[in-house]
Amino acid sequence: MPAHVRIVEVGPRDGLQNEQAQVPTAAKIELVDRLSATGLRTIEATSFVSPKWVPQLADAAEVFSGIDRRPGIAYPVLVPNLQGYERARAVGASEVAVFTAASEAFNRRNTNAGIDESLQRFAPVLERARDEGVRVRGYVSTVLGCPYQGAVPLADVVRVAKALHAMGCYEVSLGDTIGVGTPGGARAMLRAVAADVPMGALAVHFHDTWGQALANILACLEEGVAVVDSAVAGTGGCPYARGASGNVASEDVVYMLHGMGIDTGIDLPRLADTGRWLSGMLGRETGSKAGRALAAAG
Amino acid sequence: MPAHVRIVEVGPRDGLQNEQAQVPTAAKIELVDRLSATGLRTIEATSFVSPKWVPQLADAAEVFSGIDRRPGIAYPVLVPNLQGYERARAVGASEVAVFTAASEAFNRRNTNAGIDESLQRFAPVLERARDEGVRVRGYVSTVLGCPYQGAVPLADVVRVAKALHAMGCYEVSLGDTIGVGTPGGARAMLRAVAADVPMGALAVHFHDTWGQALANILACLEEGVAVVDSAVAGTGGCPYARGASGNVASEDVVYMLHGMGIDTGIDLPRLADTGRWLSGMLGRETGSKAGRALAAAG
Repeated sequence: MPAHVRIVEVGPRDGLQNEQAQVPTAAKIELVDRLSATGLRTIEATSFVSPKWVPQLADAAEVFSGIDRRPGIAYPVLVPNLQGYERARAVGASEVAVFTAASEAFNRRNTNAGIDESLQRFAPVLERARDEGVRVRGYVSTVLGCPYQGAVPLADVVRVAKALHAMGCYEVSLGDTIGVGTPGGARAMLRAVAADVPMGALAVHFHDTWGQALANILACLEEGVAVVDSAVAGTGGCPYARGASGNVASEDVVYMLHGMGIDTGIDLPRLADTGRWLSGMLGRETGSKAGRALAAAG
Repeated sequence: MPAHVRIVEVGPRDGLQNEQAQVPTAAKIELVDRLSATGLRTIEATSFVSPKWVPQLADAAEVFSGIDRRPGIAYPVLVPNLQGYERARAVGASEVAVFTAASEAFNRRNTNAGIDESLQRFAPVLERARDEGVRVRGYVSTVLGCPYQGAVPLADVVRVAKALHAMGCYEVSLGDTIGVGTPGGARAMLRAVAADVPMGALAVHFHDTWGQALANILACLEEGVAVVDSAVAGTGGCPYARGASGNVASEDVVYMLHGMGIDTGIDLPRLADTGRWLSGMLGRETGSKAGRALAAAG
């Protein structure tokens, strides 16, 4: 087990991009600023994917320009290609994230490109980023299952993770996009990837669609991973299963880690406050059980 | 990891006794009958605790008389003392469950008796049960924390579990009543108890108040426990934290176990159907994320 875990807060991006409610730009900025005061070191601030695909985050440039970027905190933003990279850079982003799926079918449906074509699109982004001293995080989605092709071979997950790392991603986040995985599979997947990519360059990213996220994270911590993606208030839902749960809630992850004596540097009550505030903004109950329990405890 | 796990379905008792909604007797009977058709081998059917304390289950005798008891399925009922035992026996119960807390403060508040006094009350129940060939399950509550005294010493958990086993309980269920535990503590607690009580005579019982239940169950499975208590649709709430989550949902546990190749004998879609039906009866959304995902998948 790691002694310290870094939480990568993805709520402002992966959470909000899948919420039905329209969140005003000012509230998105406030969300990131509130998160910056919780002790988080990495906050994915927004996405420069085309508004055609992600209308919820069409105000990416305004959001990124509006947030108070604090020293010591990384604010990566999602970019789909060189054009998105340039838009992000134009407003001062110094860290970006690129993404592809381990499932060929998923990648074609989501990006209109095969996996290899996606990787080729990222090559100039990574090259430019290297020249400009911009750090790049890589996402591999559908690592434990795909809504279109079903099972995803482990070899495909390893191949894509390895490619992103070789291209220069300092960290590769392995995502169970549809939240179907269970601990045995999560452990085996991480172990397979870690045979080819150093564990220190890996993160795990679970959605709680089937309620398995925290158990999967535990299994991955036991394998040695020390970076976990999560979203305050468990925002996000699942575009492939209406009414289902979204990202694992940061509050629940932090509660577990602290309970196990693993340091995160995060002030849990303050994080939970932010989750409650955000849930109010979204007009729904928080998706964090720890958040609900904290609120009930007064 | 065990190859097979037995799920002890506690929804009709631990779930319903903490729900606000009044469930008609006929619906309680239908719930048990539906559960009997899912492959479950143990279903806690109701409670013969005084209606003064548990008004929701005041119809225990009618419920127990009304259910269709199938061969091969155990239908334990909760009894607080010899009087409750006799009421349960009068309607034909052949398995009962007794309960005490590991926390002295909790036991006094809940049963108006100290732990040792509770254990003394059970002595005649266990004696009579032995004479009459009735199996007795024992519950130890507040094993990872108490709403009144806070931390609960491990030694107290071990002492109470050992006493129940020594008195003749064939199985002792270790309950995190307020759902505050995390995997490290759950593992250490189980390990400590298993040093004095055979693992084969132990079960774990988690509430999902802080979202930790499935991760805690995983840690306990890794320690070798092979019996897990859970409630269909995650019913129950938490009387100590209004608005908080209840028992871990059976559907989520079964989904995890099956995903890990662990057999339960349970038909998950049929169990989830029962959870949806029950949630409709209670007029609220199911507390099972797997149940929601299954419903969304159509």
